[in-house]
Amino acid sequence: MAAVPSSFLGTLFVVSADPSVISFAGGLPSSAILDAAGIAGAAADVLADAGPAALQYSTTDGYLPLREFIADRYRRRVGLDVTAANVQIVNGSQQCLDLIAKCLVDPGDAVAIEAPGYLGAIEAFSLYEPRLSAVPVDGAGPDLAALERVVARDRPKFFYAIPNAQNPSGLTYPDGARRAVAELLDGSETLLYEDDAFGELFFDGRPRRPIGADLPGRAVLSGSFSKVLAPGMRCGWLVAPGEVLAQFNVAKQAADLHSNHFCQLVLHRWLTTHDLDEQCRRVAGVYHENCRALGDALDERCPELEHTEPEGGMFLLARLPTGVSSLALFDEGVRQGVAVMPGPPFFLEGGDDVIRLNFSNTDPEKCAEGIARLSRAIANLA
Amino acid sequence: MAAVPSSFLGTLFVVSADPSVISFAGGLPSSAILDAAGIAGAAADVLADAGPAALQYSTTDGYLPLREFIADRYRRRVGLDVTAANVQIVNGSQQCLDLIAKCLVDPGDAVAIEAPGYLGAIEAFSLYEPRLSAVPVDGAGPDLAALERVVARDRPKFFYAIPNAQNPSGLTYPDGARRAVAELLDGSETLLYEDDAFGELFFDGRPRRPIGADLPGRAVLSGSFSKVLAPGMRCGWLVAPGEVLAQFNVAKQAADLHSNHFCQLVLHRWLTTHDLDEQCRRVAGVYHENCRALGDALDERCPELEHTEPEGGMFLLARLPTGVSSLALFDEGVRQGVAVMPGPPFFLEGGDDVIRLNFSNTDPEKCAEGIARLSRAIANLA
Repeated sequence: MAAVPSSFLGTLFVVSADPSVISFAGGLPSSAILDAAGIAGAAADVLADAGPAALQYSTTDGYLPLREFIADRYRRRVGLDVTAANVQIVNGSQQCLDLIAKCLVDPGDAVAIEAPGYLGAIEAFSLYEPRLSAVPVDGAGPDLAALERVVARDRPKFFYAIPNAQNPSGLTYPDGARRAVAELLDGSETLLYEDDAFGELFFDGRPRRPIGADLPGRAVLSGSFSKVLAPGMRCGWLVAPGEVLAQFNVAKQAADLHSNHFCQLVLHRWLTTHDLDEQCRRVAGVYHENCRALGDALDERCPELEHTEPEGGMFLLARLPTGVSSLALFDEGVRQGVAVMPGPPFFLEGGDDVIRLNFSNTDPEKCAEGIARLSRAIANLA
Repeated sequence: MAAVPSSFLGTLFVVSADPSVISFAGGLPSSAILDAAGIAGAAADVLADAGPAALQYSTTDGYLPLREFIADRYRRRVGLDVTAANVQIVNGSQQCLDLIAKCLVDPGDAVAIEAPGYLGAIEAFSLYEPRLSAVPVDGAGPDLAALERVVARDRPKFFYAIPNAQNPSGLTYPDGARRAVAELLDGSETLLYEDDAFGELFFDGRPRRPIGADLPGRAVLSGSFSKVLAPGMRCGWLVAPGEVLAQFNVAKQAADLHSNHFCQLVLHRWLTTHDLDEQCRRVAGVYHENCRALGDALDERCPELEHTEPEGGMFLLARLPTGVSSLALFDEGVRQGVAVMPGPPFFLEGGDDVIRLNFSNTDPEKCAEGIARLSRAIANLA
């Protein structure tokens, strides 16, 4: 990632524990939407029914009924032609970043990634020493000319993309851009790696068609229960063609034998005794309110900031006035009692002209006050 | 690992699900010792007390009170000079194998490993393309001349050892061998990687001193709750010097952000409301009975097999009569209704003259019948 002063992470850590600082810098789901009572009931039922078997070692691929649930939901919601045989359970979709890179990337291999892109992906991939190529994204989707150039020139092993309510930008690829990406990658040597962490959190509730649906055999898709049910249980999945999954399964077994079996049973119990659609609507409803309040506050207090208009997810991206550095704004913001996430960690280079704002953990009242503080911080720097 | 016919794993999988086959081939803890009711109570209490916070994202290093419990126990039981700052929680100690190799091994680097050695370690390390050097072990501990030669010649990044009731052999390093290994590695470039999966399962209940206690700053130690509490929760740890742990923590964060937070809270609750020593005594007591029955059955029915005399753990190793192949015995055993684990997967080369026998999941009655069948299988091959 682009260079960040080492003091930044330390300050971020300190301010995240300081209640006097209103934070838009975080990335947690709202605790208010986590169903502790429902999970408690599911855990009790699982242990009463399965007993010690719920605590035993299990298979590397994961709990079959959970994998069936995930495959069924993809078939039903977005018409993806998959079965449980295409699904591998992992420790949150972060583990897919590590293991896909482990399977596919040798030092010096090219990997294409969005700019801005997900920080955790840049970190995970970097440990395998790839050459990372940036593909700019905006409201129209990825820069197709740039993607075409990167694919032809660098022959990346895969293009890593978050087409649904991206972290950090909140951008969603329009349908036309999805088809164009599929056409562009079709017949190339580049696999599509589609990270769908936020696809259940569209404010309009409408599922978006995965790009991989039009790239049979040439796309992998990751997802997670972290954003809608229980991030601390670290339960996500990879959906992939058989030959990719076979290799991935070997890496998963070497990495940690299998994912938490007890929590797979608990999540499956919750999913079969509760309404996941209703839960997603509830979460998306809260985030939609928060997002609207954040956008309104920005438009009112900081009209000089151009910002994305998310259709879902937990983040938006704002472009700063010329001459205002996001890293300087982070420091000045903390002095004013507000924390934002500076841009550089989301870029391979540059990015100091944007900030990421989280809205999953802001309520409309705190939000207005936070953006008023941000406005003062910007005025002090301009 | 040494070559194994691809049909072997398929057959192993089939026989493990066939109740007519008495299996000594497995490696699971006995389900009878897993405290499902105690875990159910701990889970209910955790969710009642912490609510949604128990389901949230958490820190990469792990739940501090659990890390403190682990450090305290090492200080108290074996005099290891460590604090929570030296402890990182992982997804079972298998994850240490992956991440230590990821941190320390570049392709072509040397790694020293016991022969026989733990299959899962050979698999995990191999993905990082090291040169593996074998150090033979027997009842006297590792072959010190071989270890010295390997350290001087190959300069391995680390020596991976299971000094306590090893998988697959059941061997425990005598105290003198521990001191000799520490002296031999002291001042070398080779780190000690001590895997202590079975140190709580000595039949005499006496804790053995970690070799790393005499190699301050030059040893890492992994452990796990899998063998005594809940393997399916995938909760283990690495104890390491600060500079190793800092690098390990970066790899852990990239791998999966953090280990299951909910289950860390549940295990900590169980540990602070139950008696772990008593639980370990209970488990070790059952395994001791089973081990004695297995040894007696072997001595009576298969006196031609030389076998180890484990002081703890879940496995013993038996040497076959000249000319009997462990892979052939596996096949003939299945025909006779008994499954054993052939030797080659535990060796870099060779190993077809030994078999591993598990005793954590055998009871004395089934054991006698299983060994009678084994005796017939050997007779058919000799």
